[in-house]
Amino acid sequence: VTSMRNFLSPTSIAVVGASDNSEWSVNLSKNLIEHSPGVKPYFVNPGRDVVHGHRSYSKLSAIDGTVDLAFIMVRQERVAAALRDAGSCGIRSAIVLSSGFGEVAGGVMAEKEIRTIAAQYSMHVLGPNASGFINASGGVVAYSMSLSGPPLVGTAGFVLHSGGLVNPLMAAAEAWGIGYSTVVSTGNEAVIDAATVIDLLVEDEATRAIGVFLESFRDPERFRQAARRALAAGKPIVALVVGASEAAQRAALAHTGALTPDALVTASALRHLGIQQVSSLEELIVTTGLLATPNRLRFGPRVGVVSASGGACDIISDTAERLDISLADFEPHTRSALREIMPSVAVAQNPLDLTGFVASAADLPNLALEIVANAPEVDVVLFQAFAQPSTTDPDPEAAVGWFRETVASLNSFAKPCLLIDAAAGPLSPLARIALADSGALILPGIHFGMSAVRAAISYDQVRERALQRDVSEALPLREGSKMWGEAASLEWLTQHGVPCVEFRLARDEQQAAECADKLGGLVAIKVSSEEIPHKSDIGGVELDVQGRMAAAEAFRRVLDSVQKQQPDAILDGVIVTPMQSAGVEFIVGVRRDNTWGQLLMVGLGGVFVEVLKDVSIRILPVSREDIEEMLDELRGAPLLRGARGSAAIDRGALVDAVVAVADLAVNNSETLDWLEINPLLAGSNSTQALDALVCAVPSQAHSIVEVAR
Amino acid sequence: VTSMRNFLSPTSIAVVGASDNSEWSVNLSKNLIEHSPGVKPYFVNPGRDVVHGHRSYSKLSAIDGTVDLAFIMVRQERVAAALRDAGSCGIRSAIVLSSGFGEVAGGVMAEKEIRTIAAQYSMHVLGPNASGFINASGGVVAYSMSLSGPPLVGTAGFVLHSGGLVNPLMAAAEAWGIGYSTVVSTGNEAVIDAATVIDLLVEDEATRAIGVFLESFRDPERFRQAARRALAAGKPIVALVVGASEAAQRAALAHTGALTPDALVTASALRHLGIQQVSSLEELIVTTGLLATPNRLRFGPRVGVVSASGGACDIISDTAERLDISLADFEPHTRSALREIMPSVAVAQNPLDLTGFVASAADLPNLALEIVANAPEVDVVLFQAFAQPSTTDPDPEAAVGWFRETVASLNSFAKPCLLIDAAAGPLSPLARIALADSGALILPGIHFGMSAVRAAISYDQVRERALQRDVSEALPLREGSKMWGEAASLEWLTQHGVPCVEFRLARDEQQAAECADKLGGLVAIKVSSEEIPHKSDIGGVELDVQGRMAAAEAFRRVLDSVQKQQPDAILDGVIVTPMQSAGVEFIVGVRRDNTWGQLLMVGLGGVFVEVLKDVSIRILPVSREDIEEMLDELRGAPLLRGARGSAAIDRGALVDAVVAVADLAVNNSETLDWLEINPLLAGSNSTQALDALVCAVPSQAHSIVEVAR
Repeated sequence: VTSMRNFLSPTSIAVVGASDNSEWSVNLSKNLIEHSPGVKPYFVNPGRDVVHGHRSYSKLSAIDGTVDLAFIMVRQERVAAALRDAGSCGIRSAIVLSSGFGEVAGGVMAEKEIRTIAAQYSMHVLGPNASGFINASGGVVAYSMSLSGPPLVGTAGFVLHSGGLVNPLMAAAEAWGIGYSTVVSTGNEAVIDAATVIDLLVEDEATRAIGVFLESFRDPERFRQAARRALAAGKPIVALVVGASEAAQRAALAHTGALTPDALVTASALRHLGIQQVSSLEELIVTTGLLATPNRLRFGPRVGVVSASGGACDIISDTAERLDISLADFEPHTRSALREIMPSVAVAQNPLDLTGFVASAADLPNLALEIVANAPEVDVVLFQAFAQPSTTDPDPEAAVGWFRETVASLNSFAKPCLLIDAAAGPLSPLARIALADSGALILPGIHFGMSAVRAAISYDQVRERALQRDVSEALPLREGSKMWGEAASLEWLTQHGVPCVEFRLARDEQQAAECADKLGGLVAIKVSSEEIPHKSDIGGVELDVQGRMAAAEAFRRVLDSVQKQQPDAILDGVIVTPMQSAGVEFIVGVRRDNTWGQLLMVGLGGVFVEVLKDVSIRILPVSREDIEEMLDELRGAPLLRGARGSAAIDRGALVDAVVAVADLAVNNSETLDWLEINPLLAGSNSTQALDALVCAVPSQAHSIVEVAR
Repeated sequence: VTSMRNFLSPTSIAVVGASDNSEWSVNLSKNLIEHSPGVKPYFVNPGRDVVHGHRSYSKLSAIDGTVDLAFIMVRQERVAAALRDAGSCGIRSAIVLSSGFGEVAGGVMAEKEIRTIAAQYSMHVLGPNASGFINASGGVVAYSMSLSGPPLVGTAGFVLHSGGLVNPLMAAAEAWGIGYSTVVSTGNEAVIDAATVIDLLVEDEATRAIGVFLESFRDPERFRQAARRALAAGKPIVALVVGASEAAQRAALAHTGALTPDALVTASALRHLGIQQVSSLEELIVTTGLLATPNRLRFGPRVGVVSASGGACDIISDTAERLDISLADFEPHTRSALREIMPSVAVAQNPLDLTGFVASAADLPNLALEIVANAPEVDVVLFQAFAQPSTTDPDPEAAVGWFRETVASLNSFAKPCLLIDAAAGPLSPLARIALADSGALILPGIHFGMSAVRAAISYDQVRERALQRDVSEALPLREGSKMWGEAASLEWLTQHGVPCVEFRLARDEQQAAECADKLGGLVAIKVSSEEIPHKSDIGGVELDVQGRMAAAEAFRRVLDSVQKQQPDAILDGVIVTPMQSAGVEFIVGVRRDNTWGQLLMVGLGGVFVEVLKDVSIRILPVSREDIEEMLDELRGAPLLRGARGSAAIDRGALVDAVVAVADLAVNNSETLDWLEINPLLAGSNSTQALDALVCAVPSQAHSIVEVAR
């Protein structure tokens, strides 16, 4: 990063392939000349003397000055030569707009060549297929698409895989008065990827928060590290990650993989890294804009609302419930203070509706703000009792003055107090003037605005915890691993502190009878084999077996049935376990993910996991607190508290068991491929794994021989 | 309605209580003078000779001309007198801006007086506490808040309970170029309510669709009728209904009511009436705007997308999945036609990404549009391969020309072809000019835009069916109804064609033994009593009973247990039923709702209904198709198709059973209070009610005596 610190701040740029006939070239030259005051532009075109009204050079080496960055837009076949020319001239930064590389079948080798050349000349290359960057705060617009005006300088940084979204993003940000420090389109990321740009923006003093639009994680390890540095620097990352729908269409993976569509894994990974996820481009803009507010104060969870519209209050209430935002309950002290200043028609509750009376009592909104912002039960204030000043106001100057005072007042409290509009209309020109240099913004509409507030609350809550997390590495599937039988699996889990049902392995009828006798009461009889993952499907399980005779008979039936249907399967024998009393069934799994490393999955059994896919996922390692959170976010969470008339389960014991599984997974990450406990039975006094399968590199300790007692 | 057709089109308006010191009055006079060309304004203020630079009249009767509408903004205490004055002068329309009526505890009587005066003089009164209306198409702005410019004339009509949301709505609509015919703020609705305004807008030729913001349904019957007329006229209604969060906080109601939070009932009612529900003000604007498009074509379900940005395509894919919009699969013919025109880097799939090549091949978007719009597998086209023309374009005139041609091309196909922006930024001034009179709009962003498209598809799908539905009346709870015992309930259901389990009523041990004998096999024994709704809680149920002796013993145990815990309860006896084989348990309920009449509820049993509240609700009567749809929208729907390894259930038999319940409810709406079948067991061959409770006015036919066999 250090060596490329100046990548985004060149003082001279050469356009290689400049042409009056190219729309790209026309746009770029205009952006350089009109919007890049500190940049000296050069134009290179061997076939012309003049391009865009400026002198044209025949080649880079003909330029009579230092060139910091080469912006290359020649035909695909000529890109490599142009890059080599730049490298030979000592140019250390390049942007390649040309396309036809890794994004098409025939272009992969050409893209590899770009990487080779970049390495050879120690050159930082953005692209290919990248439209460039807008360094608004630094005054460099090395960008090949048409701008609708000068960039709006601000504190939000953006990185986008997609070049086509840069203009819509800037247009919406401009409309809402959300300024940006730098916007970068990374294209194919042959050399510089989104993680590298995040690193640059973390070091960039003008950037306070970073919005990223991602189609994939090209180098998860670097992304992870970049996210971690952003976290440490206190610069929030907001991410719009697309592709969930494609992922959902992919064939279900085997085992727990079937329950972990990529979208869920991605969401878990982003949460792990303290990144706030959004689902629309507008949310990306508004949330990053809010989080980038200069001198932003900490967002606590309880929101207070001051509005002049009952309708807006209703929408805010419904939206808060949908987004899981807590609206503060006003304390008696706050309510009585409000009653003293408010008209009798208004009710002192949160959200606070000051009613149309504000039209005849201009100081009422600020008085109410004072009370609500000073209430200790309120952490964040949304202020909606204002109209944007307009040139059509009876007294526009007074309106601007009032608005300025309101903004100053909002900024004077020791907690975040934010302006929010009822709908996502644009800033009025006078509001734009009044807000200038205040550091404040008007949240554009309840939908996008409250979504941004939720993200700010979440970020401030999770940042500390996310910082304490280890960042593990991606773990591709192990070679040489194999599935173990139930007996070996349960034994191994038991050895590592995971509470498992008491079980005995029987190899003949006699042993089965003895096991049943020793265990006493009703027992379950299940075949154990590393070759039969779904044993109940082929008659390999008998339940509620009582006594020696019955156990011996069940042994025979189970073996007959299994051998009839899978005659070649090697069997360990059968395991005999006591039948378990009532409880809630969970499923706990661990698997390796190519992008994010080891994943822990927890779900409720039965219809919850099979029909509703109701599972929670985290990247390992996790804390006890993470596991508590996983349980809470299950849709079936009420069952833990004893819904359906049953006793509440011993939650501590359940969490202990999952912690043991997580520890086991982390401590054996080298050899463990996946494991699945199904069910993990959580009762009112204890938790036990009733059945489990492990797939790992077998070691002597886990061999079947060892397990046999 | 006929008599008030001119309410929104007065040719003269008197402002009663006009004053240079009132912001309301200043705004209104400005709106009348600047934005209401066909309206003659009069100002009434007994204490002034001149107001707002115009002659002031001492009273209404002093005005030397006809007054069509009185806009009253005097103090609360003087409103009644002002209304009477207006009535005496023969004025038939009034708007009351003044507040302090029904919205405050002390103002209820005063509001009632307004109603009385209105009736006395046959006067149409909007308000009190209403900010007025903007009849943009008719050139009347009888509205007391500041406009930021002239209204944007269009075809979307809006009705809002909230006056405070009118300005934000118009500002956002203006930014996105969505014009409105009329916007009405109805305030307290003492006389004119939202339903009345809907009626007016249905008759208004300038209005093509109606957006409503509702805080409550003051007169559900009138609302229903208005919605029906809108449906018949083909003018879609879009509704933002708030208050769900308050409803959710209300204590759970008894019986099935506990599973029907008001938000769910409201959603069911709106669906019943063919109304499209939205959850934000922006969606209200954009969806109404799209549905109001002049000469709108029918929206089929399969959407095709033509874009110049891969990133936008990804967001569109994810959003489509989230909103349950079908993206068309391109047929081989379409794909090969696309391949012929596209650069090699592009892939002929839907969403179609034309890539950055559009910059150097200006005709490519229109060629691709031609192919996709003519593909028979595509019903609706979203076109995103454009940039709004801008004054900063190298050739702005050419850009406007290209844009106009594109719009003309989009409008030339026989299916909806729509422009959609990647983000919700405002229309550029040149786009505004280019779009003028085209009838087209640019959907503002993928989030709001696709939400609107989904609503249009849904409306065109449900309109026919909604029109065929009867509109029943609200049904408050019956007096004199009482709960029946299980035996009477099951008997009554059986009589009305609902398939119920075979059951026998036993009044002593001997009878119980005989019943068990006759039924044969395993039986269930349950106490039957109209006074014990939850019989299993007090030991009133025994399962898996086999043989005469066991049945007699079970009878005794059940009776002992129940009599011990509820000694005063009158028992019918016990019912004996055969134990049922496996199947999927449903719960089916009917109840009366004060707002919408009889409701039918269907849910899956067990954790689905108890933990997940996974139920579907409809207003009765329903069609067979409605019931199919109810089953499909359950989260546990996969269970119907045989998830979890079980056989698929006989869906036809299940639907038959629910149809029988629905018919029974409708045919007995006068006497039935509620009923609940729990469980209704759906098997692979048949469906049976295993248990039921009915609460209704008892008739001789349902008496316990009749039931005893």
